[in-house]
Amino acid sequence: MAEKFRSKMSKPNGLSPQAASRNGRAERSGSGRAAAARRAELRAELICLLRRCRAAAAVLRNKSAEEKNRALRIAAERIWEAQPDILEANRKDLDAALAAGLPQPALDRLAVDVRKIRRMTESVRQVAALEDPVGKVLEERRRPNGMVVRRVRVPMGVICVVYESRPDVTVEAAALAIKSGNSVVLRGGSEAILTNRALARAIRASLFEAGLPDECVHLIGTSDHAVVRDLVSLEGLIDLVIPRGGEALIRAVSECAKVPVLKHYKGVCHVYVDDSADLEMAQKIVLNAKCQRPATCNAMECLLVHAAVAEKFLKPCGKALMDQGVEIRGDRTVLSILSGPLAKKAEDSDWGAEYLDKILAVRVVNSFEEAISHIETYGSHHSDAIVARDREKQERFVREVDSAAVLVNASTRLVDGFEFGLGAEVGISTEKLHARGPMGLADLCTYKWVVEGDGQVRE
Amino acid sequence: MAEKFRSKMSKPNGLSPQAASRNGRAERSGSGRAAAARRAELRAELICLLRRCRAAAAVLRNKSAEEKNRALRIAAERIWEAQPDILEANRKDLDAALAAGLPQPALDRLAVDVRKIRRMTESVRQVAALEDPVGKVLEERRRPNGMVVRRVRVPMGVICVVYESRPDVTVEAAALAIKSGNSVVLRGGSEAILTNRALARAIRASLFEAGLPDECVHLIGTSDHAVVRDLVSLEGLIDLVIPRGGEALIRAVSECAKVPVLKHYKGVCHVYVDDSADLEMAQKIVLNAKCQRPATCNAMECLLVHAAVAEKFLKPCGKALMDQGVEIRGDRTVLSILSGPLAKKAEDSDWGAEYLDKILAVRVVNSFEEAISHIETYGSHHSDAIVARDREKQERFVREVDSAAVLVNASTRLVDGFEFGLGAEVGISTEKLHARGPMGLADLCTYKWVVEGDGQVRE
Repeated sequence: MAEKFRSKMSKPNGLSPQAASRNGRAERSGSGRAAAARRAELRAELICLLRRCRAAAAVLRNKSAEEKNRALRIAAERIWEAQPDILEANRKDLDAALAAGLPQPALDRLAVDVRKIRRMTESVRQVAALEDPVGKVLEERRRPNGMVVRRVRVPMGVICVVYESRPDVTVEAAALAIKSGNSVVLRGGSEAILTNRALARAIRASLFEAGLPDECVHLIGTSDHAVVRDLVSLEGLIDLVIPRGGEALIRAVSECAKVPVLKHYKGVCHVYVDDSADLEMAQKIVLNAKCQRPATCNAMECLLVHAAVAEKFLKPCGKALMDQGVEIRGDRTVLSILSGPLAKKAEDSDWGAEYLDKILAVRVVNSFEEAISHIETYGSHHSDAIVARDREKQERFVREVDSAAVLVNASTRLVDGFEFGLGAEVGISTEKLHARGPMGLADLCTYKWVVEGDGQVRE
Repeated sequence: MAEKFRSKMSKPNGLSPQAASRNGRAERSGSGRAAAARRAELRAELICLLRRCRAAAAVLRNKSAEEKNRALRIAAERIWEAQPDILEANRKDLDAALAAGLPQPALDRLAVDVRKIRRMTESVRQVAALEDPVGKVLEERRRPNGMVVRRVRVPMGVICVVYESRPDVTVEAAALAIKSGNSVVLRGGSEAILTNRALARAIRASLFEAGLPDECVHLIGTSDHAVVRDLVSLEGLIDLVIPRGGEALIRAVSECAKVPVLKHYKGVCHVYVDDSADLEMAQKIVLNAKCQRPATCNAMECLLVHAAVAEKFLKPCGKALMDQGVEIRGDRTVLSILSGPLAKKAEDSDWGAEYLDKILAVRVVNSFEEAISHIETYGSHHSDAIVARDREKQERFVREVDSAAVLVNASTRLVDGFEFGLGAEVGISTEKLHARGPMGLADLCTYKWVVEGDGQVRE
């Protein structure tokens, strides 16, 4: 068994290194007939890999919650035991990244230490503890002709996750896919390739050990960029692509995708402080929405303040923001209230900007309607909040702001799968189809209609 | 009021006839700078139209069920009163279609008479009587920090329906869009253009009369094909495209779409008659699934019969099918049981074929597993049925066949929005994302997350 297991594991990435590296050489040697032939070869290998992945999905989708959870618990152990492998692989990745001159933030994201490995194993155990989304009866009706119609949640099939350098996504995406009964094709950043391989190896080993098909998890082990284009164009072999990373990655994937993509574009989140607001509460929310983690998509990028409370609110709140190092880009009224080296004049381009940093656009509006209209014009329909006591304005805000999440008297930073009680962090969708806002495990599933009859026909 | 109304109605199609016809000429004169300029002009007009349509959607989405229903009831009246207009327009469309040499089935679909107009008004009244999908709270949780998180159903925004010649789709799609709180851009077949205009005029007049924005319904009034490419590429202006028609139309729309598309590809539906089946029931189901309306997507295209009951079942059932004019394309075993002018040998291409006609592929399988594997290999994951008494095989079939609808002891023809109790016939999706199988009004909606707090922030 162990022998068989090892021989299977020796090619953990599905694509043979030979084919991948031949392809790399062909790419480097420029176009031409040989390169085209090798591209075709790589594409054919990819199709074979996906067929195996699909076959494995057909097995996995009928496994019980207990079988899947057991595999995940084993995976947590095997990842922990594979520490030396993972750290060694990561050291090599880091050396190569340093030599290639990767900037420090990218190196930080790439680096794995014992603490990070522990966190990965914890996240896998957390996923194991979640409720199984598969098999839930979403609705059930007995029709007048006596047949029973049920809508039942089932796995999607094969999910493809395309992501950048963070190796923990490898573990997280694989765990969420297994739990939701889906096969997953992982395409991580090429700079993390050895680390990702070591992680995928441990996960596949645990699937095998748990008696589940290890072909359910595939890591695309080539650094060839064309492979992403090929992947997302294989209609019928992949059911869903989730790109996780910056806007450039997401646009690149969406543009060549023939397969459905769950996208997450910009988060240009607003907080509007109404003239009916509890100003102390407003300040607490504003500081949290901007400063708690400015680089996240649900951090506030623009503060709107009703003119009637502008001076009273902005004087202390602006100072508190600047004390925390936040640069204010304000309109004329804001600058008549705030001053100092961090109080700057807003340009047109500041409205609708996604800073992901300690910068905040601030505008004074003359009415509730002006606030709504600003959000409609410049927002990204991600998460927008109102701070107000006036019940009618709260309700109008909730109704009229067309965003994935609208909040009353709460920080935009709370828009998150865990905070919403979805149990998992699958991502936040800025799409309107299928899933909108924070996504849970259920959003990795589809449903089927099950009809039970006793001979019913259409009249 | 009436004056203003008439002046608005004089340009019911959004795109000025001048721009459209200029563009038509430019297209005919071939490429060149003038043609490009006119295309750009048409595109700019389209963008203006869609902006108005979006603004109207923002008004419509906050209207009550009663307001929308009233508009629909008025629409039913106005369409009925517009009979002379509609019939006159249809006569002109038919004359042009005859002159252009359209085949008889297309002429039949295009033709409108008093009976069809009555049916259209009835369908509008039926939609008015449906439950409003908007505003429904899909889930609600109070979180440990005290905030209440709700998932609330809201309209999608702007829906675009691209369809072929049947003018009743104009009425049906507009009614479903209004009821679900969405604006709709209708792009019907150019051969039905005058009929569709007359219908859209009546609907817009009723919206105006009911105090709802008439810009919610737009008919694209040019016969220029490039307009469809433009339409479905306008990301951010259209939220969803629904192509309704043959596979060629759907592929054409999907291929150039940048906007999400709800697709309906082929319906290659199977019925598998197990050796445990009640053969009398099986024959009733098979005859219904094939003969009741062979041209529909949920009609059976392939019959699989377990070898143990092949002779006993196929003798009478095959005869009954052929008596109803169904041509059988069978494998060797089938042809050893059935004979006659309608019993023919199946070619490889018959497995997986969508005939939409009185033709049926028939195969004898040696096991339950072989049936499942045939369906997986050749089916289109639309609707597949088993006829069996064996409870275990019923359950395995339901679990293992990955189709939008799986049926036990019932005809595939029952896979339909009305039969399933969804109240409306929005279409049948062969996608796995967002909506799968028969779609109801709810599938024209998305949701938003509403958070109510009293000062909560992220810790």
